[in-house]
Amino acid sequence: MDDRRILHELSRHEALRLLAGVAMGRVVFTQRALPAIRPVNHILDQGDVIIRTSLASSVADTVIRRPDTVVAYEADLIDPDTRQGWSVVVTGIARLVDNAQDRTRYEALLRPWVQNQADGVLRIRPDIVTGFRLTPPD
Amino acid sequence: MDDRRILHELSRHEALRLLAGVAMGRVVFTQRALPAIRPVNHILDQGDVIIRTSLASSVADTVIRRPDTVVAYEADLIDPDTRQGWSVVVTGIARLVDNAQDRTRYEALLRPWVQNQADGVLRIRPDIVTGFRLTPPD
Repeated sequence: MDDRRILHELSRHEALRLLAGVAMGRVVFTQRALPAIRPVNHILDQGDVIIRTSLASSVADTVIRRPDTVVAYEADLIDPDTRQGWSVVVTGIARLVDNAQDRTRYEALLRPWVQNQADGVLRIRPDIVTGFRLTPPD
Repeated sequence: MDDRRILHELSRHEALRLLAGVAMGRVVFTQRALPAIRPVNHILDQGDVIIRTSLASSVADTVIRRPDTVVAYEADLIDPDTRQGWSVVVTGIARLVDNAQDRTRYEALLRPWVQNQADGVLRIRPDIVTGFRLTPPD
């Protein structure tokens, strides 16, 4: 049985639509010259990816120290049994949301998952959006 | 209702055990100074993470060009509804497996997912292993 899949590239529009349809993904950044990754939950707002993370976390720390930090944000929904699904990667500059009105709105929409952590809201502008879908051969 | 979760750090042993129990994860690397990420499938062999990826892929290209490339490898199993689950991150040097015997063995164990791609096998030595589990408060 050939269980290999065909990889189809996604358009930007389709990729952002899929990303908006799931609750969590992984923020990828560089920390002390090493690649780092952390799962978080997200929403999309006017085309930007909004994540909420502990201010003590390494990603928030990195973004606060270096205001124009580029991060990647990945989400996927791939079934390891059927080997079908998709993955989307957004790459862009991450900034701490410091506007009080935006922050309050995002905090209402995006509940943190972990107890007892002071947290911040980050906005990622999707400068590069890539993605693929895996489907069975015809 | 308080749906926040408690974050428990995992031991190295427990983290590698959980990683070995799932089929796929995400390899994280730096490409032209930007963070990059790609979902792949994996196995664990003698404590190393073995992944198979297209040789044309950016991760293989990065590892071949820079033999001591440090990558991160992440897997998670978090239910967005119950907000319970775990995430594991392994960080270490990635190398192309060029020993023919190892390569053949890994190719038998680790079937590629995508059709029509010449592929290579990468070994990641887990120098740093971190992870957490999210559980409900008592």
